Amino acid sequence: MTPAVIQRWIDMIHDNRVDELDDLLADDAVFHSPALFKAQEGKAATATYLTAASKMFAGTDFRYVGQWFGERSAVLEFEATIDGVYVDGVDMIVWNDDEKITSFKVMIRPFKGLQVIMPRMAELLQSA
Amino acid sequence: MTPAVIQRWIDMIHDNRVDELDDLLADDAVFHSPALFKAQEGKAATATYLTAASKMFAGTDFRYVGQWFGERSAVLEFEATIDGVYVDGVDMIVWNDDEKITSFKVMIRPFKGLQVIMPRMAELLQSA
Repeated sequence: MTPAVIQRWIDMIHDNRVDELDDLLADDAVFHSPALFKAQEGKAATATYLTAASKMFAGTDFRYVGQWFGERSAVLEFEATIDGVYVDGVDMIVWNDDEKITSFKVMIRPFKGLQVIMPRMAELLQSA
Repeated sequence: MTPAVIQRWIDMIHDNRVDELDDLLADDAVFHSPALFKAQEGKAATATYLTAASKMFAGTDFRYVGQWFGERSAVLEFEATIDGVYVDGVDMIVWNDDEKITSFKVMIRPFKGLQVIMPRMAELLQSA
């Protein structure tokens, strides 16, 4: 069964209600980008990255295609097409006892998929 | 509990017994590279890629750091350092009723990590 926090995340993305991130993220949430080594630390930085990603995928054929669950963590696989380029990725999500997300990591394949999202994300983050 | 086929995979990699791949892979196994869109089809092609990857990580600090299980699939997260560059990735493994691996997908982050493994893998595949 899908953990409550994950169902909440999936519904939020599906309905494009990113304003709910403030309630879904822990204060000490960390975002690990598919491109950068350096983690983005804190709720505000994490929300900024997730909001930009959500904008990037809005209006595309983004869909979750697989899910794996651990104790207080999950891996969600997604697929999407951006500018005609196939993007296959995972959201790796960890949460705490209060059902708040503490860590959000993204990986993307293939190389061309990562290449197409990097300038898009940079642009969206600059205008954020 | 770790599924038998995954424990077998982990032990095989740990002990560097890649000759056992022939028994662990299904005839119709498919390999999805972190770099290439196109899947590598069949047991022989899949074994070639997994053997090259195993050679690339042999002697490094490669270790599995997380695992998530589904019905007949698993996600294993790994970390390693190659040429001083941090590599963080997932092995996404699917198996069949006969406990043979039918699909093996790899994703790698960050961008520099993917950049460092691509020429290494190309070299190892050429000399395979």
